[in-house]
Amino acid sequence: MKNEPRALLDPDRLFASDPAQRKIARRLYEAIEELPIVSPHGHTDAHWFSENAPFADPAHLLIVPDHYLFRMLYSRGIPLERLGIRRNDGGAVEEDPRAIWRTFAQNYHLFRGTPSRLWIDHTLSTVFGIHERLDANNADETYDEIDRCLKTEAFQPRALFERFGIEVLATTESPLDSLEQHRQIRESPWPGRVVTTFRPDPVVDPDFEGFQHGVRELGGLTGEDTESWSGYLRALAARRDFFRALGATATDHGHPSPRTADLDRKSCERLFAAARAGKLNAAQADEFRGQMLTEMARMSLDDGLVMQIHPGSVRNHNRDLFEAFGRDVGADIPARTSYVDALRPLLDRLGNEPRLSIILFTLDESTLTRELAPLAGHYPTLTLGPPWWFLDSPEAMLRFRRATTETAGFQNTAGFNDDTRAFLSIPARHDVARRIDCRYLAELVAEHRLEEDEALEVAADLAYHLVRRAYRLEHETLTS
Amino acid sequence: MKNEPRALLDPDRLFASDPAQRKIARRLYEAIEELPIVSPHGHTDAHWFSENAPFADPAHLLIVPDHYLFRMLYSRGIPLERLGIRRNDGGAVEEDPRAIWRTFAQNYHLFRGTPSRLWIDHTLSTVFGIHERLDANNADETYDEIDRCLKTEAFQPRALFERFGIEVLATTESPLDSLEQHRQIRESPWPGRVVTTFRPDPVVDPDFEGFQHGVRELGGLTGEDTESWSGYLRALAARRDFFRALGATATDHGHPSPRTADLDRKSCERLFAAARAGKLNAAQADEFRGQMLTEMARMSLDDGLVMQIHPGSVRNHNRDLFEAFGRDVGADIPARTSYVDALRPLLDRLGNEPRLSIILFTLDESTLTRELAPLAGHYPTLTLGPPWWFLDSPEAMLRFRRATTETAGFQNTAGFNDDTRAFLSIPARHDVARRIDCRYLAELVAEHRLEEDEALEVAADLAYHLVRRAYRLEHETLTS
Amino acid sequence: MKNEPRALLDPDRLFASDPAQRKIARRLYEAIEELPIVSPHGHTDAHWFSENAPFADPAHLLIVPDHYLFRMLYSRGIPLERLGIRRNDGGAVEEDPRAIWRTFAQNYHLFRGTPSRLWIDHTLSTVFGIHERLDANNADETYDEIDRCLKTEAFQPRALFERFGIEVLATTESPLDSLEQHRQIRESPWPGRVVTTFRPDPVVDPDFEGFQHGVRELGGLTGEDTESWSGYLRALAARRDFFRALGATATDHGHPSPRTADLDRKSCERLFAAARAGKLNAAQADEFRGQMLTEMARMSLDDGLVMQIHPGSVRNHNRDLFEAFGRDVGADIPARTSYVDALRPLLDRLGNEPRLSIILFTLDESTLTRELAPLAGHYPTLTLGPPWWFLDSPEAMLRFRRATTETAGFQNTAGFNDDTRAFLSIPARHDVARRIDCRYLAELVAEHRLEEDEALEVAADLAYHLVRRAYRLEHETLTS
Repeated sequence: MKNEPRALLDPDRLFASDPAQRKIARRLYEAIEELPIVSPHGHTDAHWFSENAPFADPAHLLIVPDHYLFRMLYSRGIPLERLGIRRNDGGAVEEDPRAIWRTFAQNYHLFRGTPSRLWIDHTLSTVFGIHERLDANNADETYDEIDRCLKTEAFQPRALFERFGIEVLATTESPLDSLEQHRQIRESPWPGRVVTTFRPDPVVDPDFEGFQHGVRELGGLTGEDTESWSGYLRALAARRDFFRALGATATDHGHPSPRTADLDRKSCERLFAAARAGKLNAAQADEFRGQMLTEMARMSLDDGLVMQIHPGSVRNHNRDLFEAFGRDVGADIPARTSYVDALRPLLDRLGNEPRLSIILFTLDESTLTRELAPLAGHYPTLTLGPPWWFLDSPEAMLRFRRATTETAGFQNTAGFNDDTRAFLSIPARHDVARRIDCRYLAELVAEHRLEEDEALEVAADLAYHLVRRAYRLEHETLTS
Repeated sequence: MKNEPRALLDPDRLFASDPAQRKIARRLYEAIEELPIVSPHGHTDAHWFSENAPFADPAHLLIVPDHYLFRMLYSRGIPLERLGIRRNDGGAVEEDPRAIWRTFAQNYHLFRGTPSRLWIDHTLSTVFGIHERLDANNADETYDEIDRCLKTEAFQPRALFERFGIEVLATTESPLDSLEQHRQIRESPWPGRVVTTFRPDPVVDPDFEGFQHGVRELGGLTGEDTESWSGYLRALAARRDFFRALGATATDHGHPSPRTADLDRKSCERLFAAARAGKLNAAQADEFRGQMLTEMARMSLDDGLVMQIHPGSVRNHNRDLFEAFGRDVGADIPARTSYVDALRPLLDRLGNEPRLSIILFTLDESTLTRELAPLAGHYPTLTLGPPWWFLDSPEAMLRFRRATTETAGFQNTAGFNDDTRAFLSIPARHDVARRIDCRYLAELVAEHRLEEDEALEVAADLAYHLVRRAYRLEHETLTS
Repeated sequence: MKNEPRALLDPDRLFASDPAQRKIARRLYEAIEELPIVSPHGHTDAHWFSENAPFADPAHLLIVPDHYLFRMLYSRGIPLERLGIRRNDGGAVEEDPRAIWRTFAQNYHLFRGTPSRLWIDHTLSTVFGIHERLDANNADETYDEIDRCLKTEAFQPRALFERFGIEVLATTESPLDSLEQHRQIRESPWPGRVVTTFRPDPVVDPDFEGFQHGVRELGGLTGEDTESWSGYLRALAARRDFFRALGATATDHGHPSPRTADLDRKSCERLFAAARAGKLNAAQADEFRGQMLTEMARMSLDDGLVMQIHPGSVRNHNRDLFEAFGRDVGADIPARTSYVDALRPLLDRLGNEPRLSIILFTLDESTLTRELAPLAGHYPTLTLGPPWWFLDSPEAMLRFRRATTETAGFQNTAGFNDDTRAFLSIPARHDVARRIDCRYLAELVAEHRLEEDEALEVAADLAYHLVRRAYRLEHETLTS
């Protein structure tokens, strides 16, 4: 009786099983289920929407770009080559998408209890109409059905964007990007709102590969003299303007730590000169990055871009894999993070500026009650981003609300981000977040900590209104 | 149908919604609901009880002194001036209490999901008989009703103290305080038990504003030569005796970290001389504070005062606000804290002394299972204080019991502290703590980890007996 | 109506009280309840099984060896002498087992809410047929009944081993141990599988008492020249082989931190020479231990022994108690631990070796979502050990699954370890773990995150199959 045909998605999934709570959660969810998706932070490919070409095949759409999936398979001994991940040396990797798909299907049981399982089931069921749990036996049949779909117009990127009810989707680009795809999207008759995000790490982090080259290129793109500190800052401001003209409302910063600095001009010039010369030691590079966060905040005061700080990931922890396959192969590992002293220089300078908005993320849950909720529940400039990356999961989302609400409330949080490269998982991820928030609110109502009319307002805020306000994407005002 | 009239307080609030657990929780709560309130640690104003004058108005009673409330409002962009918080420069602030109250009422939705919401609702409902949820529409009506009450005898401080069922209430004073109010209270015919707590930070922390002046004043008050280390220690001992004579059973220490030291006499004398001369660097100031914790512990062995250590808060994190408004304006932020090495010098010297009692608090929940429960479950001198400050909330209280009970049990914890400046919130805060403890115990009973007759004993211990024992306020012995 | 006779063990204990979840939990538990016990990590005494002599008396069987019990009693002021713990100076301690038992029984209420309570109740009920809650009144009667049992053949070690359904039990020995008991067990006709574990701390940790003597002894035992680095490594490899011949499948490492190192040969030789001469400072000793973890991993690649790393305990925190009673008296306290940088040298060298298997443990729960689940969910060499020591309890086990499953899944975890010196608590501890895992799975099923047929497979994996695979104790393959 294993894996008999039955719906993959139960309508009550992720709600508490206590009947009193479940009933309330259902009512809250029904009221917000159909709200548009606002996706202000992610890593989808702008080419998809500018070109609107059909996706290649099931494996290269669903597995190869998703490091959540292949890191788990790798952890259980499956070489990345078998999953079609490109090697730097051009060495042989599995080229047959069906073979990759079969490997995945055979090992689908590894994802039990993980959010990947929820996302894939949701995608199979709601996007492709497949209602049987994936396994070795139905791998081929499932592959064929997805493949058949992908060849039809209804599964092209723009059609899916519309079907998913996406109101706005942000991608992330380097300041050196031409934003050509974004220009094309805006000039096309297609009404979908796809915007860019200004991610300056390649030209503000001296440890980034190609930093010096990038700084020179920045000069070329803007006509500024990026050999001088002031010209460098002007060049960054110019690119920010360019990004804003193509829809950007936010910047994003993936530094190793949230350290900030507020140095005098002379020190900045000295550090920048050494950075251009490749002569910073590790501590100086960290100080330079910290100074650049403060510079970016200062520019945000001028141009209104919302600032996102995503710290605490040790990138490319697995040396062998980095050498063989490069970045983003599932080997980034979070490390202990501290915000209280780290943010102080920036906050001392700009922490009470009403026009500045900084969204803080974390991979270190121990900071939630200790540092982040107290900071966001005090500083008018600070908002809490949603649970991120490894924490973008039902249990971690519940812990996030339980840890932050009592000190920072709901209005100091920024709604949900899907932060994904996996386009088809966007509805699934938002659905999980909405269900968990409704579940949390239902618990508050069932325990008489909040009344249901209030919970209904909050549910809509968490699903829709807060993210639009936090990312300055709104035209209307919040309902509450 | 928004905000229709209905009771603000459900009799089952904060109990789990599972019917089996809720039924048990109700029975436990009924058995302890009416026990007297023991409040051994707080920051109410002794003048209230010595003078027994009516409270001024709703805003200056309920909002202006409560940094939980105005920090949240400030985080959403409302200037402290609009809330009537005094500026250091005497600059203009809102003087009209009704205007302050309206601002609060208009923004009451910000507190959804926070303990402040529970406390205010409880106060409105049980103290003032107001049963409608506060909002912009009923702000004036609510204000008028509270104001009317405050003008009557039944709402004077001593009458409320009695109505709240407070058995004993501790305030907190500096060693330099004359304790005149406490003397008056004791000499008055009023039988209410209000005691002081010895908080020596101003004269043992070299970084405290006015430390040097304070040490000289300490000499003046005691007739000891506080220019010498031995005279300084004698002066502190003398003030402790004076505090004990006015009811103190405890000391309280709000150092940045729980660091302790156990230096030889020569080093102490050197450090103290440098402290008096204002010549300590940051590391030496920290060492001096650490030595003073050990000195205070040594004195506790002699005089029996219970020692409270409240570490881990970075005070006055917001520089602009500190300059404009001073201390205690909601800008203290917790930081990472470590106890294991920090307490070692003190514990090496006195950790097994049966007469010494130290109550440890934390703002860093990651220390609960890792450090604090193992320490308290071993050292006879150590007891765990209740969840404190940002953690004085339903979710954090539940996490506290789940994190500490399995290693330290119930008997190594110190019952509940309200730690508040907001006198009217005292019954509300104790009620939340009692409900959450009953809820936790009901869960243990429903899951057959404890039997109900035992849970009844524990519930009474947590609500009443343990705090009296921990603070040496009891006349009878514990029931269990 | 206090403590009236009733069954000590409810058949639904530890399952959630929500009826939907409880029903599923029961079905899962019924399916795995009777699976054999695999106990791959513990500290029982091999003499018990080689000699099979009757246990002495209730107190010396159940209380005196169990530091969980006497640390709690000590924390509430009961001197260790009253509990029969031997002093180093031979000073007087309680010798009468009945008196020790009475002290324990009088204070049994201290264990409310702790796992010790669950374990003792389970032992009394299932091993000795005692169904009344222990207290001062029934202390003697209970003592007599246990004592009566212990004098019968059915309660001798081998009989209990069989009655408990133990498939394999590992003890832990120093490389200097003769393993004589293990030889006797293997040569006896008794079919019980008792194996050893290679715990090299005494000869690889320069801070271990007697390290230099131990290294010389290691030379004597193996005929290698342990004055040279290469001879020392050969000697260790030889002892590993000897342990393997007596059934060992694993090594175990209890270093203060998980720090690893990967030094060149010259540096190793220099450090080792200084270690033998007793001339390492604290930092160098730490580096040497770190290098030895990498050496042990390298040897594991050759001989297939699974490596267990148990870091983060500050041993003998209570100086007075260490001087009076020695090690293992309940005064070890966990400290903050970090894995991400610490493991890097070892992982850079061997992290992708398919034949290497390292099981990581922690006492610092803040590392679970931040470091350990991401590491185990990526590196093929890493597996997560179960909640350990202070975390071997219902709440901590639940937190462990909630923290690790979403990122690392189930298959990167290593089943359960009881890690106990208290032989009679083994069935109780496995029962708690099985119940909590079933409860967690039931929650996933009730919330439609997993289907029940999958949960049944996972329940069997967690109770039985994963531990056999992780410790290379299996003959069959996993079902899933």
